[in-house]
Amino acid sequence: MRITVWNEGRHEQKNEKVKAVYPTGIHSVIADGLREHGFTEVRTATLDEPEHGLTADVLAATDVLLWWGHMAHGDVKDEIVERVYQRVMDGMGLIVLHSGHHSKIFKKLMGVNADLKWREANEKERLWVVNPAHPIADGLPDYFELPHEEMYGEPFGIPEPDSLVLVSWFQGGEIFRSGCCFYRGRGKVFYFRPGHETFPTYYDKNVRHVIANGVRWAAPTNGPRVWVENRTVPLEPLPDAE
Amino acid sequence: MRITVWNEGRHEQKNEKVKAVYPTGIHSVIADGLREHGFTEVRTATLDEPEHGLTADVLAATDVLLWWGHMAHGDVKDEIVERVYQRVMDGMGLIVLHSGHHSKIFKKLMGVNADLKWREANEKERLWVVNPAHPIADGLPDYFELPHEEMYGEPFGIPEPDSLVLVSWFQGGEIFRSGCCFYRGRGKVFYFRPGHETFPTYYDKNVRHVIANGVRWAAPTNGPRVWVENRTVPLEPLPDAE
Amino acid sequence: MRITVWNEGRHEQKNEKVKAVYPTGIHSVIADGLREHGFTEVRTATLDEPEHGLTADVLAATDVLLWWGHMAHGDVKDEIVERVYQRVMDGMGLIVLHSGHHSKIFKKLMGVNADLKWREANEKERLWVVNPAHPIADGLPDYFELPHEEMYGEPFGIPEPDSLVLVSWFQGGEIFRSGCCFYRGRGKVFYFRPGHETFPTYYDKNVRHVIANGVRWAAPTNGPRVWVENRTVPLEPLPDAE
Amino acid sequence: MRITVWNEGRHEQKNEKVKAVYPTGIHSVIADGLREHGFTEVRTATLDEPEHGLTADVLAATDVLLWWGHMAHGDVKDEIVERVYQRVMDGMGLIVLHSGHHSKIFKKLMGVNADLKWREANEKERLWVVNPAHPIADGLPDYFELPHEEMYGEPFGIPEPDSLVLVSWFQGGEIFRSGCCFYRGRGKVFYFRPGHETFPTYYDKNVRHVIANGVRWAAPTNGPRVWVENRTVPLEPLPDAE
Repeated sequence: MRITVWNEGRHEQKNEKVKAVYPTGIHSVIADGLREHGFTEVRTATLDEPEHGLTADVLAATDVLLWWGHMAHGDVKDEIVERVYQRVMDGMGLIVLHSGHHSKIFKKLMGVNADLKWREANEKERLWVVNPAHPIADGLPDYFELPHEEMYGEPFGIPEPDSLVLVSWFQGGEIFRSGCCFYRGRGKVFYFRPGHETFPTYYDKNVRHVIANGVRWAAPTNGPRVWVENRTVPLEPLPDAE
Repeated sequence: MRITVWNEGRHEQKNEKVKAVYPTGIHSVIADGLREHGFTEVRTATLDEPEHGLTADVLAATDVLLWWGHMAHGDVKDEIVERVYQRVMDGMGLIVLHSGHHSKIFKKLMGVNADLKWREANEKERLWVVNPAHPIADGLPDYFELPHEEMYGEPFGIPEPDSLVLVSWFQGGEIFRSGCCFYRGRGKVFYFRPGHETFPTYYDKNVRHVIANGVRWAAPTNGPRVWVENRTVPLEPLPDAE
Repeated sequence: MRITVWNEGRHEQKNEKVKAVYPTGIHSVIADGLREHGFTEVRTATLDEPEHGLTADVLAATDVLLWWGHMAHGDVKDEIVERVYQRVMDGMGLIVLHSGHHSKIFKKLMGVNADLKWREANEKERLWVVNPAHPIADGLPDYFELPHEEMYGEPFGIPEPDSLVLVSWFQGGEIFRSGCCFYRGRGKVFYFRPGHETFPTYYDKNVRHVIANGVRWAAPTNGPRVWVENRTVPLEPLPDAE
Repeated sequence: MRITVWNEGRHEQKNEKVKAVYPTGIHSVIADGLREHGFTEVRTATLDEPEHGLTADVLAATDVLLWWGHMAHGDVKDEIVERVYQRVMDGMGLIVLHSGHHSKIFKKLMGVNADLKWREANEKERLWVVNPAHPIADGLPDYFELPHEEMYGEPFGIPEPDSLVLVSWFQGGEIFRSGCCFYRGRGKVFYFRPGHETFPTYYDKNVRHVIANGVRWAAPTNGPRVWVENRTVPLEPLPDAE
C-alpha cells in the first residue's frame, strides 16, 4: 500500500499555537500514525512544493491519498485538482480530513458545496459507531472521545453517504456525520471529521486507528474501468434459444 | 388516507404517572395530532380488543398503521403480526414509534433484533435533520428539542436505513438514528424514536409534524406486486434485430 | 406545481428524421405528456433563447425542471448552469433525461463524468421495476417495453443511487440503471434513461407515466436550508440534569 | 480465514442429471473453487449430517459460511437457523447462493420473503458489474457470461441492497440484481444469484472469482457488539465548558 499524506501546511508556518502542537506539520504526524499501524510506504506532500508535491509520478505511485486543507483551498491549482480527480476515477482511494470538506477536490467529487456549521469552543466530541459491521469500525469501541475539538454541525451538505460509520456528539448540543464512505468512479472516498489544527487530535490513538482502517477500506480494487470516453459497442449476434 | 393508530395501552391502565399524562391513552393523543394535521379518517386500536383491534377488515381499510408498544410485545399474537406483515408487503405504510423498536412486527421486517442502549434520566433530546431534501423533513427547522425524554443510544441494531432523516443528541452524551426510512416489499416503514410513556411527547408540535410527514411519505403506492408465490414465465420469442 | 421543460432543441432544426418525429420539438411533446397527467403550469425553455430561457425569474418560478440535451452540452453557459445548480441546492427538483447524463448540470451534481456505453441499433428496451414501493413505481406494471431505442450500457459512471427504481434490459445483451434517484442539497434529482431523438419515446404512455411520477417525487420540500456560507454558532449554556 | 460451505445435498442423491454434474456434491465443487483462490481452511457441511453439520463448535470456528439450498428449506431445523443467525449478528459473514434466496436464514435476515420470478430454459445469463469500486468487483471484466442458466426475474422481494455490485441480463428478456451486499448486526451478507443444480456453474472461473471476492468482503470485522440485551447506562457527569 503506497500512501501519500497531503497537507496545506500553512497554519504551521503562521500560527505559533499550531506550530507548538504540530512542529513538523500535521502531515508528518498523520504519516507517523500510519507507520505506527504498519504501513511502510508513506510519503508526504504539501501545498507549497512544486505542483503541490502531487506530480503525475507521485499520484501514479499513490494507492491512497489523504487530504488536509483549510485556509488556502483557493491556492490549490485546478490542474492538480483535476489530476487527483482522474486518479480517484481510476481507483485511487481518497481520505478527506476535517476542514478538507471545503477542498476543491471534495466538493467536486461530492457534487455539492459540503457546507456545515462550526464553532470553536474547545468542547468535548464523542464519536459513536453506527455501523459495527463496517471495516472502518474494526477494533473500535462503541464510542471514543476527544476532550477538546472544534464543533461541526448539521445539516452537512453532502449526498447521503453510501455507508455511514461514525456520528459525533458535541457538548454544545450538535451531532455530525463524522465518518462517511462514498464510491466514486473506480475509487473510494472516506470523509473523517476530527482534526482541528490547534488540537493534538492526530496523536490520538483512536483517531489514528480510524484513519488506518479508512486507508485499508479505500485501497484500490481492480474493477472494470469506468468509460472516460463513450464508445460504440457492436450489436452482438442474437443469442440462440435452446 | 385511512390511518389506524395502534397502541398496547397497558401502561395507561397500570401506571398513575402515565395515566396523568395520557388519560385517554397514547393512541388517542397521537390520533388527535394527526387530525390536527388534516387527516380525517383516523381510527385507533389497542392490544386488549378482540384480535388486538386489527381484524382483516380493519387492516384492509388501513393505508398507514402506527404502532406503539413496550411492556407487552410478547402478548401480540403471531397471527396478527403475520396479518400486519402481509399488508406491509402489499403496500400498507407502517410507522413504528419509540419502544416499538422491539415489537414483533418491526423485528420481523428489519430481520434483526433492533437492540439499543437506554437510560431514564429525564434528559434533554435534540433532534437534528440530516437530509433536508426528504419529504419527512418538510417544514422542520434545523433541529427541535424535547426537554425531557428517555435516552436511546447506539449501536442501534437495525439495517442501514434506506434514508436517514433525523439524528438525536442527548444531554448525557449519546446520539441516535431517530428518523429512519425503509422499503419492504411494496410497503414503506418509518421508525421515529421519541415517545416515552411518562412524558407529554405526543402533544409536542414538532413531534406531531414529523409523524404527519411520516404518514404522507408512507402512503401506499400502487407499484407492481412482489411475488407471493414463484411462477414460471414462458421464454419469449427472441427479439428481431432491425 | 410549476414545471419548466428545458430542451437543447438543436437536433429538431438540423435533422429531418428528428424533425419528423418531433416537429414542435422534444420539449413540447414532453410538456404535452405532463399536461396529460394533470399538470397545468408547464412551460418550456430552449438553448437558443436568451439566457437559454432560464432567467432568474423563470427558475425562481420553477418547482421542477426537466432537462434534455445532447449535441450542444458545451454551448450551455456556465453562469446558467450555476444558476440551475443553486436552485437545486435550494430545493428545486431536477429530472435529467437520456443524453442529459452528459450535461454540465448533471455531471456537476453527480461529482463524476457519468460516462456509459452506447449503441444505435434500434433495438428493443424493456424497463423493469426493482423497487415496487417507490413513488416513481406507482401504477407501473412489472416492466414495460420500448420497441426501438438507443442502447445505454454499464458501467454507468454515477454514484450509487439513493434509490434505484428501474433497470433496463436491451436486446443486444446489456442492462442499465435507467431510473435513479439522488438527494442533493435541499433538492431531488431523478435520472430517467429513455428518449433518443429519432424515436417517438416521449409519446409513449409508460414513459409519460414515469416522468409524471418523477416530477411528483422531485417536488420541493421545505426542509432546513443547507448552509451556503459557514457561520459561527455560540456555545449554548450547558443543559441541566434533572 | 475459516470457511464452511453448507449444501442441502439432496438433488445430488435423487437426480441423475445433477449427480452427473456434481458427483461429489455442489459443496465440494464450491470448496474446490475457494481452495483454488488460496483459501486453505475450507470445510463442508450438509443437511443430512447431525445438526446439519453446523454444530456450535463448527460455527464458532467459521468466519464465513456459504449456503446452498433449494428443495428442502423446510427440513432445516429452526434451532440451527437461530444458531447461524446469532453468529451473523456476532460478525460471521454469510454468502447465500442461488435458490438459497428462499432459505429460512436469508428470509429471516432480510425481513421479507425474497420472492422472485423464474424460468428453466437453459438460456444465456450475462452478469454486469454496476459498482466497479466495490471489492467484490475486483479483477472482474465489465461483464461475464454463463451460457446456460436458470432465469431469475424482478421484482426480487429484498430490501434495497446496501451495495448493488452485479446485475444479470437474461436472453429471454429479464434482468436481476444478482450481486447484493447487506450489513446485518456485526455481520455481512452477500447474495449471489447463479448456480442452478443442473449446470456446471460452480466450475466457472468468473463465478469462483466472485465467490472468493465475496468471502473476503464478508470476513468478520471486530466492531462493537450490537446489544443482545438492553442495558442501563448511567447518566454521566455533565461536561464542563472551557
